[in-house]
Amino acid sequence: MTEFPIDTVRHSTAHLMASAIKRVFPGTLFGVGPPTQNGFYYDVRLPDNKQLSEEDLVQVAKEMDALKKQKLPFERREVPIDEAIEIMKKDEQKYKVELLELLKTKGSTAAKELDDDGLVEETEGSAGVSTVSFYTIGNVFLDLCRGPHVQNTSQCGSFKLNQIAAAYWRGKSTNDSLQRVYALCFKTKTEVDTEVARLIEVRERDHRVLGDRHKVFFIEPNSVGVGLPFWAPNGAILRKELEHLAQQYERRDGYKIVVTPELAKEELYYKSGHLPYYADTMYNPIDIDGEKYVLRPMNCPHHHHIYLSEARSYRDLPLRIAEYGQVYRYEASGSLSGLMRARGFCQNDAHIYCTYDQAKEVFKEVMKLHADLYALFGIKDYYMRLSLPDMNKLDKYVDNPQKWTDALEIIRQAMKESNLPCKEVEGEAAFYGPKVDFQIINAVGKEYTISTNQLDFFASERFDLKYTGADQEKHPLYVVHRAPLGSHERFVAFLIEHYKATFPTWLSPSQVRIITIHAEFNPYAEKLREWLFNAPIKTGTGGLRVECDLSTNTLNAKVRQAQMDKVAYVIVVGKKEIEAGLLAIRLRNGGSVKHSHAEFIKRIKLECEKRVDGLIEGTVPIEQYEEDLWSFNP
Amino acid sequence: MTEFPIDTVRHSTAHLMASAIKRVFPGTLFGVGPPTQNGFYYDVRLPDNKQLSEEDLVQVAKEMDALKKQKLPFERREVPIDEAIEIMKKDEQKYKVELLELLKTKGSTAAKELDDDGLVEETEGSAGVSTVSFYTIGNVFLDLCRGPHVQNTSQCGSFKLNQIAAAYWRGKSTNDSLQRVYALCFKTKTEVDTEVARLIEVRERDHRVLGDRHKVFFIEPNSVGVGLPFWAPNGAILRKELEHLAQQYERRDGYKIVVTPELAKEELYYKSGHLPYYADTMYNPIDIDGEKYVLRPMNCPHHHHIYLSEARSYRDLPLRIAEYGQVYRYEASGSLSGLMRARGFCQNDAHIYCTYDQAKEVFKEVMKLHADLYALFGIKDYYMRLSLPDMNKLDKYVDNPQKWTDALEIIRQAMKESNLPCKEVEGEAAFYGPKVDFQIINAVGKEYTISTNQLDFFASERFDLKYTGADQEKHPLYVVHRAPLGSHERFVAFLIEHYKATFPTWLSPSQVRIITIHAEFNPYAEKLREWLFNAPIKTGTGGLRVECDLSTNTLNAKVRQAQMDKVAYVIVVGKKEIEAGLLAIRLRNGGSVKHSHAEFIKRIKLECEKRVDGLIEGTVPIEQYEEDLWSFNP
Repeated sequence: MTEFPIDTVRHSTAHLMASAIKRVFPGTLFGVGPPTQNGFYYDVRLPDNKQLSEEDLVQVAKEMDALKKQKLPFERREVPIDEAIEIMKKDEQKYKVELLELLKTKGSTAAKELDDDGLVEETEGSAGVSTVSFYTIGNVFLDLCRGPHVQNTSQCGSFKLNQIAAAYWRGKSTNDSLQRVYALCFKTKTEVDTEVARLIEVRERDHRVLGDRHKVFFIEPNSVGVGLPFWAPNGAILRKELEHLAQQYERRDGYKIVVTPELAKEELYYKSGHLPYYADTMYNPIDIDGEKYVLRPMNCPHHHHIYLSEARSYRDLPLRIAEYGQVYRYEASGSLSGLMRARGFCQNDAHIYCTYDQAKEVFKEVMKLHADLYALFGIKDYYMRLSLPDMNKLDKYVDNPQKWTDALEIIRQAMKESNLPCKEVEGEAAFYGPKVDFQIINAVGKEYTISTNQLDFFASERFDLKYTGADQEKHPLYVVHRAPLGSHERFVAFLIEHYKATFPTWLSPSQVRIITIHAEFNPYAEKLREWLFNAPIKTGTGGLRVECDLSTNTLNAKVRQAQMDKVAYVIVVGKKEIEAGLLAIRLRNGGSVKHSHAEFIKRIKLECEKRVDGLIEGTVPIEQYEEDLWSFNP
Repeated sequence: MTEFPIDTVRHSTAHLMASAIKRVFPGTLFGVGPPTQNGFYYDVRLPDNKQLSEEDLVQVAKEMDALKKQKLPFERREVPIDEAIEIMKKDEQKYKVELLELLKTKGSTAAKELDDDGLVEETEGSAGVSTVSFYTIGNVFLDLCRGPHVQNTSQCGSFKLNQIAAAYWRGKSTNDSLQRVYALCFKTKTEVDTEVARLIEVRERDHRVLGDRHKVFFIEPNSVGVGLPFWAPNGAILRKELEHLAQQYERRDGYKIVVTPELAKEELYYKSGHLPYYADTMYNPIDIDGEKYVLRPMNCPHHHHIYLSEARSYRDLPLRIAEYGQVYRYEASGSLSGLMRARGFCQNDAHIYCTYDQAKEVFKEVMKLHADLYALFGIKDYYMRLSLPDMNKLDKYVDNPQKWTDALEIIRQAMKESNLPCKEVEGEAAFYGPKVDFQIINAVGKEYTISTNQLDFFASERFDLKYTGADQEKHPLYVVHRAPLGSHERFVAFLIEHYKATFPTWLSPSQVRIITIHAEFNPYAEKLREWLFNAPIKTGTGGLRVECDLSTNTLNAKVRQAQMDKVAYVIVVGKKEIEAGLLAIRLRNGGSVKHSHAEFIKRIKLECEKRVDGLIEGTVPIEQYEEDLWSFNP
């Protein structure tokens, strides 16, 4: 059997589906039907604009299987354009007629506005097309198509019709409304099954669904606005824990935390060089006392003002200025998606001001920080993507080839010495310096940019950021931009999908829930709660997050509820446990364990403070949970 | 001696000063010269617009003393307005002529636009004035004046000419520029001296001066904008500690922390009732996708959406929703003042949703929270100010007399039971319910509103905030608005002045500084720093704030620098201390103390975690610093 490319198989199977739809629903009009990443779709309009049901799809699939068995040939015919128009008119395919007339008058360029349906060969220029090709499947279906196709229907792919969505003819809401029938399509059934399983997983991990179910966030599009998430209490806990984590690393590494204004006069962003080039992604201005102010799209120029607020000497460098900074970027409403893409977000941002000589070590330190943080979250599949400027088109960038070359050399060396996986891509650098993105591949195979780092040689000049050297002279410096945890919004969206909302103990909005077997034990449970509540355990929210469920529900119902709420530890209180002075603990994996009070505190303290995640599933023995020694031995 | 009211004395002394200026600088033109809170001023324009120097003021004061000794009489004359104009024209006092002409044509109302200078008797209506009164001092000075005055110059007050400021005739920058000569004036010299000392103290505590000196905040009026403070690292530490404090109390009291959007569609504030009435204090809108969005002026409607995001039953109430929420309010640039009055600030905000029956206890709990927090800061001089609606003018307010009466009764009862000092004032309620402000009198006698509380019966109706009762029916509720620490901006401004930037250990940006007697002890100092840095002490910033000064400066210079930086504890490391295994500590009050490592940790841990402030000045013996016991005894 000939080995056809997967896109050819998918496109042929799209024709197969169209043939089947035509047989099941004669008189159906066809739009376009291109291959996709995992199959294909076809836009159709059934007679009387009938809406397709699940059952209809089953019937279409059956018909497709029948046509496959018949091994009908795919045949190509070259036809002069006018004859093609006549054929389609006779077939009453008005959308195809419209396309052909476009091709005739304007050529292929105009038709390319549509989805890439491979209507005709691409030609240079935009003169009208004189000849087009048709493909037929036996005598059941004829379609305008460039091809290529498989030889006969038995060579079509294994498929699953999996979704019907609304569409408009040529994507315009003033045109006819169509139905877009999506299908998964691979060469083998195994691949289709794998993809079906992956899509179920994608849906089950969707941060918008889980974020709603577990009360992490919501959006009020009507009275507040799209793209502006509300963080409900559980979401605010996640933020607080992430801030606490970031703060601990920043404290260790000697960062200075600041808080800077979230809006400024437009001229600040003209000075930084962001305006006018990035105006599209910025909010419209606010008039204050006749001057234009904008919500900041980034924190850098604000941190530069912190740098400038004191005289700086070489002894002060590297100077690390950090802020969980709220920024605002305009996104078209169609591209917004829960927390993943919002119109306002809070970045784990910092800027490191350093001498030219320090830049490589600083960049390595930042790469290392990423690696440490990602290891903590169990993120293993990631790489660094170095974006280079197109050195032949420096007009998009700051035009100083030597500075670009120097900066790239520093970054390449730092990346090499960091021993983390990396790639280089052309033409996506920031205008003021090369950029290193951390690309994470998530649990369902999707790649995200989670954090962006830059080595900026431009700000020093633009904002007159200098330091006094040992020689008493003023020197320019580098600014390293870094944000290892990205924004709260994007990182929490990622974490929800990464953990499927079952967060490790330290992040878990609900860490301990105490439930009683009988109401007579409620006073004991309350005392236990208070004791745990006051335990000297450091968390981002000031201590253990512990609650009692003293409702009159059955024990099983309470345990089920706690599991649905993804509580890290459920402590069941009954007579036996009280008498034995032990805690009976249900683990999230369905297992259970008994601990003395002291053991449980030791366990949960280390899970919270060291952020280890093993014991929660019972996989790390308690002996490995050793407290740190803290005594002075100079 | 007749006992004249202080304002009469001050006004007469203003005339005395004008007389003296006229004698020293003949040809001086006079504007207005009213009494002030602690003296008076007079607006003057010297011949050739000569600028007054310090020496000139000394000469004027001498002349005033000479005139006092002469016991010249103050004499009143009634003069027809046309004659008065002629007199002033003859005297070439063009500003007085202008005032008289205004009085003649428009009456006293128009002249009242000016400072309250007591030019003429107030008359109802605005008909022109036909007669005015003049006062003369002997034959040296004549002024248009309503009086009354003292009888002779010897009865003028004790004074000190203390400031010269720029002013414009009638306050308009297009008019002539004048000089405003300020004086302190009291009946006795002792009072003047006390006021001089108070003003020095005011200046020394000025949060703008200290905030700059101790690197708490700064403002970038040119490129960023007035009223938008930058929090430098020391300021960010203060914020963080305050947030940590608030969070601990909120955790104790069962608040749910949230994070909500800082902007929303305008319609949200129409719904809340803030628009259109408070449009003046809100920022201008931002156009997003053709809709108007505004930066929020308050958090309440956002918290209402959190309330609405879940079904609520009586079992969930009181529900406490808290956020350190950033808000934006427009203020005229002239009224901005450092952190005390800014255009954006971050409020220690929360809203408590409760049943009618719970409201009194909730309000008491909130009053108690204020009292606890203020005690912690050593704020003793404060009272609660209950603002009532004018029940005869309910059009400014939500027009439901019964609801006002009910809400007032609840608040009065709660205030009474809270046993804190209180006052009632008419006509300053919020439009949606009565308001209780906490008024603090600061170290230099100035009164601030630091926090505002409201009992809101209106939001429940406006936002359909209901709960399901035990009867399965929906019921309306009260919303208590509270913000005991006000905004970071205002509270930190207050604290800087309150503590004169010498913060207690827990708030101190620099808690420990280690200095060495000789460079050979630097390695020991570094180890000591690391040990302290990692000490298990809870602070808002994740642990002790400790640094080394290993510079080559002399010991004395390092100690002086640490004192200037207001470091809480200075540890001096030398051979003796290392051998003895003791820490030699310099206290901020100039004293010193020796501690073992364990003692010092115990001391500083409790100062940080319990926020006690005694030991820092050596006033609380170490024995009183007992660690809490934490063990489980059900």
